[in-house]
Amino acid sequence: MALRTVFTETFGIRHPIALAPMGGSAGGALAAAVSNGGGLGLIGGGRGDREWLDREVALATAATDRPWGIGFLTWAVDAEVIAWALEKRPSALMLSFGDPMPFASRVRDAGVPLIVQVTDLDEAKRALDAGADLIVAQGGEAGGHGKGQATLPFVPVVVDLAGPTPVLAAGGIADGRGVAAALVLGAVGALVGTRFQASPEALVSPETAKAILDASGADTDRNRIVDIAREAGWPAEYTARTVRDSFLAEWHDREDEPEAARRAYRAAVDSGAIASQPVWAGQAADLITAIEPAADLVDRLAAEAEQALSRAGRD
Amino acid sequence: MALRTVFTETFGIRHPIALAPMGGSAGGALAAAVSNGGGLGLIGGGRGDREWLDREVALATAATDRPWGIGFLTWAVDAEVIAWALEKRPSALMLSFGDPMPFASRVRDAGVPLIVQVTDLDEAKRALDAGADLIVAQGGEAGGHGKGQATLPFVPVVVDLAGPTPVLAAGGIADGRGVAAALVLGAVGALVGTRFQASPEALVSPETAKAILDASGADTDRNRIVDIAREAGWPAEYTARTVRDSFLAEWHDREDEPEAARRAYRAAVDSGAIASQPVWAGQAADLITAIEPAADLVDRLAAEAEQALSRAGRD
Repeated sequence: MALRTVFTETFGIRHPIALAPMGGSAGGALAAAVSNGGGLGLIGGGRGDREWLDREVALATAATDRPWGIGFLTWAVDAEVIAWALEKRPSALMLSFGDPMPFASRVRDAGVPLIVQVTDLDEAKRALDAGADLIVAQGGEAGGHGKGQATLPFVPVVVDLAGPTPVLAAGGIADGRGVAAALVLGAVGALVGTRFQASPEALVSPETAKAILDASGADTDRNRIVDIAREAGWPAEYTARTVRDSFLAEWHDREDEPEAARRAYRAAVDSGAIASQPVWAGQAADLITAIEPAADLVDRLAAEAEQALSRAGRD
Repeated sequence: MALRTVFTETFGIRHPIALAPMGGSAGGALAAAVSNGGGLGLIGGGRGDREWLDREVALATAATDRPWGIGFLTWAVDAEVIAWALEKRPSALMLSFGDPMPFASRVRDAGVPLIVQVTDLDEAKRALDAGADLIVAQGGEAGGHGKGQATLPFVPVVVDLAGPTPVLAAGGIADGRGVAAALVLGAVGALVGTRFQASPEALVSPETAKAILDASGADTDRNRIVDIAREAGWPAEYTARTVRDSFLAEWHDREDEPEAARRAYRAAVDSGAIASQPVWAGQAADLITAIEPAADLVDRLAAEAEQALSRAGRD
């Protein structure tokens, strides 16, 4: 018996699993594969690079006739890109990291379901005020950007606050047990990121995929210095979880030395001591031990989640 | 239908819920109340103060004929206290934070089940080597001491490593949804701390109880400076999650100024600016909104967990 939630019913999908719209790596092929597998594939539109978006949205729409969506960084995107994306008729538009209010009515007016990712309770309230149709409660164990509240205690608090607006759980979920945990915590599904980076459809280098397979959760590190060193422009309130490297070992806490950090970072990249792009990965990295096709992953996670739910407390 | 796991069956208890042996606050009355409610009450023996232990173990054994146990700080306790505790015939002896090896064979030889709490995978391997009968995988969202791996991704990794040795989940669990999450993640039950501090049986001041009711998870802070300032002697690898206060606001990251931190801490306590004891609390504090008798809590959490499991994926 398939798992059935408000999320699967509203979007007409088979499994309560969404692809995190990871900027750059969640391209059209990965989003389509997740959607074809029965989940909701979300393209990682990032800051809204139109050339990248044109290509990846075309890839997605060519590769699936199932529902798919697209996500953007709220603090970086502009109204023009949002308008462009809405014209593509996605099944959902997701906004993460920043105030969704400036774009919310435009999304709603287009009749496209608005998903807003939140990392603390103030953001959750703001998302509800903005009229979000679905909230993603993201815990700090997630790979990439976020804050410090952990998924397990954070999700039920957001569920209680948001009801009847449904909530997806994100952060630390890389197998079906995590999907099952999301559901019992009161979420209507799980948004999964790092696990899908280790799939052939993800737009990541072989080195990045290998680093994720090799990493333990304890090898990941939530920090701000990598954004400072890359001059990435991220709002200071959001830190990022990356796989620890020789740069982080030395610079982790030295946010008050931005110029020196930038020089050290560039030198480390130039010398090949660290990867040219940060390896974003969450604490569930231990659970990721093989590259697997994304559609198969969706199926496997859903089957494992059903099994976990049917076995729990019945030993 | 009650939840039934290896944990409930092995210990002959009704519900897969254990009381975290919180040093000082989990006294005999609280442990007995949890046991009477159908869980496993664990007295917080801390470093092994014999006067406190004599009193609290006597209180527990007078107040319950159900299974109860006792926990100690591994790095601080000595063999004499362990021997004393084993003579009291607890149903379990739990060791947390440090190398269990020096005490493990003594516990096993006494025929008392050994529970070992772990905060990373190296500790989990060490606990298995020591012959632990039950592992507690504690996530960093827990109140009090611990490390940084979050419960949701950490528990399944420990479960996979430890099998067939059973695992309890700890950290961030304060309602039945959290207990259900523990079970679907593969744990045989949940170890709950902060939630039980807000019960009339806990040995906490009214101010501490109120601080926990008032706190949000985002108001808690994992730090080392409070232990440094208190000269608490804790191993540097363990940080502690406490409710943020005016001392932490100023001193959080200043571990390289121990003497000044000590002076500032003492001054803040003396002036009443901060509480005389740290308020240990986990990120699940949002879910704790009332003082409730511990036995009722055990019943309620178990009932909520059953409900969460039966509803998940069946909307």
